[in-house]
Amino acid sequence: MAAVSHSRENFADQLITVIRKKNSCVVVGLDPHFNLIPDATKHKLPVSQKQGLEYAARVILEFNMQVIDLITPLVGIVKPQIAFYELYGWWGIWAYAETIKYAKQKELLVIGDVKRGDVPSTAEAYADAHIGEVHIDRMIETPFAADAITVNPFFGTDSMLPFLQTAEKHNKGIFVLVKTSNPDSGEFQDLMCGGKKLYEIIAEKTHAWGNGLIGKQGYSAVGAVVGATFSHEISTVRSIMPAAYFLVPGYGAQGATARDIAHCFNPDGLGAIINASRSILYAYTMSPWKEKYGMNAWKDATREAVVKMNDEIRKILNS
Amino acid sequence: MAAVSHSRENFADQLITVIRKKNSCVVVGLDPHFNLIPDATKHKLPVSQKQGLEYAARVILEFNMQVIDLITPLVGIVKPQIAFYELYGWWGIWAYAETIKYAKQKELLVIGDVKRGDVPSTAEAYADAHIGEVHIDRMIETPFAADAITVNPFFGTDSMLPFLQTAEKHNKGIFVLVKTSNPDSGEFQDLMCGGKKLYEIIAEKTHAWGNGLIGKQGYSAVGAVVGATFSHEISTVRSIMPAAYFLVPGYGAQGATARDIAHCFNPDGLGAIINASRSILYAYTMSPWKEKYGMNAWKDATREAVVKMNDEIRKILNS
Repeated sequence: MAAVSHSRENFADQLITVIRKKNSCVVVGLDPHFNLIPDATKHKLPVSQKQGLEYAARVILEFNMQVIDLITPLVGIVKPQIAFYELYGWWGIWAYAETIKYAKQKELLVIGDVKRGDVPSTAEAYADAHIGEVHIDRMIETPFAADAITVNPFFGTDSMLPFLQTAEKHNKGIFVLVKTSNPDSGEFQDLMCGGKKLYEIIAEKTHAWGNGLIGKQGYSAVGAVVGATFSHEISTVRSIMPAAYFLVPGYGAQGATARDIAHCFNPDGLGAIINASRSILYAYTMSPWKEKYGMNAWKDATREAVVKMNDEIRKILNS
Repeated sequence: MAAVSHSRENFADQLITVIRKKNSCVVVGLDPHFNLIPDATKHKLPVSQKQGLEYAARVILEFNMQVIDLITPLVGIVKPQIAFYELYGWWGIWAYAETIKYAKQKELLVIGDVKRGDVPSTAEAYADAHIGEVHIDRMIETPFAADAITVNPFFGTDSMLPFLQTAEKHNKGIFVLVKTSNPDSGEFQDLMCGGKKLYEIIAEKTHAWGNGLIGKQGYSAVGAVVGATFSHEISTVRSIMPAAYFLVPGYGAQGATARDIAHCFNPDGLGAIINASRSILYAYTMSPWKEKYGMNAWKDATREAVVKMNDEIRKILNS
């Protein structure tokens, strides 16, 4: 762990506080799939609103609010994936913004899974939009106000600076894509570049980017996205960036198990948050919940899926 | 040029048609900067709408419509950069969607500069959102309906497939980030990986991804983003991907000149579209237009800046 360099709580400190409070390092991915949202949620809307993109967006928001109410006693972090909101146009982005607002009312930490990245002036706009603020004449607005976002490092250091600076200024976090969870992630990320793989070089850079943003608990506000599906790579990245929090996708529907993610954690039991999306939100469509609960009892399925995931990860941490 | 494989016009064919019609391969970047939008546009709004994000979004849309009216006789392609709309939250995304709609009414081709990229199921949502369609019960909606988008290749082939398939299905285009225009782009993109630089490997992959999507004119619907600021790299990428259209940012405000972009074009005078944003939209703030025109005559400044850029590039193509 690096030395403490900040007196106020950085994003990692906030993360550790909520993890301890809920005794859970699970991140529930709020990824709306309209066709999988239970009928009862859709029937709640008045017929006048059952029109196209607005209808879908209102259903999604209603579903998200129900999910948030359900999981708030069990987990402290949610991660809306913005792609599944963009799919419904600006109405979808309205639902995304309202979802974040609702989650924060419930004192959840919100990671906006936006994977943005662009040249410096454009990156600045993304940073201001998602974790910063915008000045309009004499007014100041915080457009999305997530607590942290995911970012794509492809452009290099100059294009990361706006994210780093905005995170520092507003006490927010960023998670840099280091090794993604998809099967073909190795195509570029595992290329050997002068004795090291590209993802290792990105891990080293990300470690350097995060060095100035270490919090009271020794963790940086600059974390890394590392796919749970690659347990060997996780160990490598862990050793390169001991002070980074890992956001680990791929648990559940993408096939990774609790054993795969054991190497994400530091000896202090901290350093990783584990995401599952479909396997929790739509647990009622999957075994064993499918057989036990029907669509009408989807809340019981979702609740049990979270409890089970919490238990599995606690077991790993205690073994 | 690769062999013709499609009977209907692909995105590159549409691009070539509009380039010939307007005798221009300029792309005007619609990048709203609220503080630079002329006062007259802001004063047009009723006081009741001068509230925060909605106000900014309405000003941006009004300004974009004026710009589109102004440039439509001179150019055939616009490129809104979505980051500068996200900056104003879901209201900003409303302005983004309305801007695309208005540009398409004027028969401009629209490249959504979104630089999206994610794991396959998420990439599919982005593709459907921006260049495809979404099914909501029995309705079909096209959320943003751009003609093409920019995409980030970091995730690898499996995560590109949804973009490729959606582009093919709906006759749309994609531009893959190969070598970006920012000063630090070489940090990862120029890394030597087994005798080749990363951007060359990405260029080879992108060439392969585009092979199945060649249009009547011999150009692929899969293009490449190559920064005008790197003329040596442009030549390299040109030789790797002869059938790709290049989207070339960096002209004007980012410092590249007409000479720098000469190597973007094939001997047939085709193969590249050149983007400028700030140097056109806010020409009235820059020399020589600043001295010649004040803010009130911003339209004259913008029109002259487009005419000058068209002339400079035509000169390169005819020399």
